[in-house]
Amino acid sequence: MTTLTLKNCRPLAGPATDLHITDGLFTETAAPGAEVVDCGGRILIPGLIEAHTHLDKSLLGLPWYRNEVGPRLIDKITNEREVKVSLGLDPQVQSERHAILAMSHGCTHIRSHVDVDTHHGLAGIEGVMATREKLAGMIDIEIVAFPQSGQMTRPGTAELMDEALAMGAELVGGIDPCGMERDPKGHLDTIFGLAAKHGKPIDIHLHERDALGWFSMEEIIARTEALGMQGMVSISHAFCLGAVDRAQVEVLHRKLAENRIHILTTAPASAPVPVVKELKAHGILTGAGCDGIRDTWGPWGNSDMLEKAAHIGMRNNLRRDDEVELALEICTRGGAAILGIEGYGLEIGCAADCVLVEGETLAEAVAIHAPRKLALKGGRVIARDGACVIEAP
Amino acid sequence: MTTLTLKNCRPLAGPATDLHITDGLFTETAAPGAEVVDCGGRILIPGLIEAHTHLDKSLLGLPWYRNEVGPRLIDKITNEREVKVSLGLDPQVQSERHAILAMSHGCTHIRSHVDVDTHHGLAGIEGVMATREKLAGMIDIEIVAFPQSGQMTRPGTAELMDEALAMGAELVGGIDPCGMERDPKGHLDTIFGLAAKHGKPIDIHLHERDALGWFSMEEIIARTEALGMQGMVSISHAFCLGAVDRAQVEVLHRKLAENRIHILTTAPASAPVPVVKELKAHGILTGAGCDGIRDTWGPWGNSDMLEKAAHIGMRNNLRRDDEVELALEICTRGGAAILGIEGYGLEIGCAADCVLVEGETLAEAVAIHAPRKLALKGGRVIARDGACVIEAP
Repeated sequence: MTTLTLKNCRPLAGPATDLHITDGLFTETAAPGAEVVDCGGRILIPGLIEAHTHLDKSLLGLPWYRNEVGPRLIDKITNEREVKVSLGLDPQVQSERHAILAMSHGCTHIRSHVDVDTHHGLAGIEGVMATREKLAGMIDIEIVAFPQSGQMTRPGTAELMDEALAMGAELVGGIDPCGMERDPKGHLDTIFGLAAKHGKPIDIHLHERDALGWFSMEEIIARTEALGMQGMVSISHAFCLGAVDRAQVEVLHRKLAENRIHILTTAPASAPVPVVKELKAHGILTGAGCDGIRDTWGPWGNSDMLEKAAHIGMRNNLRRDDEVELALEICTRGGAAILGIEGYGLEIGCAADCVLVEGETLAEAVAIHAPRKLALKGGRVIARDGACVIEAP
Repeated sequence: MTTLTLKNCRPLAGPATDLHITDGLFTETAAPGAEVVDCGGRILIPGLIEAHTHLDKSLLGLPWYRNEVGPRLIDKITNEREVKVSLGLDPQVQSERHAILAMSHGCTHIRSHVDVDTHHGLAGIEGVMATREKLAGMIDIEIVAFPQSGQMTRPGTAELMDEALAMGAELVGGIDPCGMERDPKGHLDTIFGLAAKHGKPIDIHLHERDALGWFSMEEIIARTEALGMQGMVSISHAFCLGAVDRAQVEVLHRKLAENRIHILTTAPASAPVPVVKELKAHGILTGAGCDGIRDTWGPWGNSDMLEKAAHIGMRNNLRRDDEVELALEICTRGGAAILGIEGYGLEIGCAADCVLVEGETLAEAVAIHAPRKLALKGGRVIARDGACVIEAP
């Protein structure tokens, strides 16, 4: 049923109308015999975009994992690498569970970082690729080859990254060039080299704060400019843009905008975060993600990008309706633009990837993030009343 | 049905057992003919404690309020005072809607600040008192007479506060002695004077940050000590305890502990917050609240103290199971101790105020904060499957 009519819906909280879907696209008129779905006057938004997560490592569906991990970043990375073995984590099964949870909330596209390391090789990439194939037509998954455990510190990783990209990973990932890799030049030259070799974009994790993060960001910007990679680089987390010294941050904002570098925020409550209103003012494309959910790093997260919009709102102290709408824009059009999704939106000719949400206004839809009435991918129902139409393994 | 048996429940995630309730209290044995409720092996926790909210001002049940309010604290306070009139807000109806929402999530006790000002007089206090009476036996409500609009800047307010306390408000409220009142000595002398006159405790809002907040806090501590009010003073928000300079904060922690001054956190994602692990280490009683929900200040909040435990966890970067359990403790025993609730807990002889939650462990219950299966107040069912047994007006 990718041919149907959504009767009495309110696109982006506008006036109630009927929208027609033919062969998965929004069309001017109804196809003969199209099924009619009564939307009860609910708001329709385009599909939610999960633009930063880790599909290969959630513990969804497993017995509760009692977290007794140490406080440092490296404690969490080391523990995870080992626990994946002791728990016998299957990246295919875990990514399928995770993607189905995202679909239940009306997510239609995911960008997932997937671990590549000398311990697990390409098992994560293979597992997520299998899930991507299995769920084709119900959710789109983009894969970032991600050297979570470091590539400078673990020889052989760069070669595996190269292989992952040849296999079909769409983006080159990276991680804290100073804080984690201790060799910013080596790390950044390697990942930009891989990007150039494969003609693929970059999405790099940058948790480094304040001046350390500014330094790494300057180095990322310099390479983006030198290699003419404007529009092809995203920086995830970018905690250093949440620094107290706004004058320093302002300089970086200008350089990021000039080089069309995108920012992906996970809006954690416990770390400094990019200020989304400032990014918007600079015209810097901004998307968002739930980051890892229910994994060995911590118990939080449920893959709901409408709740994430609320978290972005609360974290950025957004209160006015226009501000809350910005949070929603980040979780929809912002992420879609960064992922380069063609035909995204509710206009005629766009793919019918959309979600019926509860609430009188867009701000209310975000604030309450109630279970979604209906979610469609290419006109096909993927979720109803908060539940995905397919069962998790 | 305040006499029943909770069959196959797991108190605080311990081994499965049967708990007996007779005439509203947990008892050793079942009363003859007690109704049996099958808990399906779910975790039982004591009632959730909402220890900082504003029952008189939510906009629940009204058409969506489009927020276009200015960014300053005073913009929000002035706007709210005026909008209460233009919307014809009825504090009795609004507080009943709010309390019923809290009950739906398993909240059994609320401490509510209620506005007292020269514009609205005691209408808020009267309205919340009427709700308290209406819901007696289903939820306990404690009232703080709260000079939201300032009492130094608005003559006549202190007299109204005096009247509110005589009418039965249980606590004296206060607000930013410097930032809002511009007269810390005047403000604090007035509220401590009212407390002494009525023999009632104090719960003061303190949003002031860094050195300004430290100064006000020192003045609060000095008066607590001088008047022998140890154990009778709470400070809400206490953003200044989230300051970067931990050595200065440490000095205050010690003085707060010495004077048995309690902290109530609302754990906002966009402001500095007290560090709950440090408060715990100092033995400072800590409770929590959702603050105002869905009001003219902003659209956020749903009165769910189990979700608030998750927010406290995320804000404080709690990840280990023992850390997440601390967040739950704050929203249960911590708040209960501050409110001075007698017979609180799941032990024999305690009032049967309790909630059946979903999840394998306490940490999972917090992380997922799924709709509550059942909530009891004095053994009486107040909520089932996430819905309150009584309908909101």
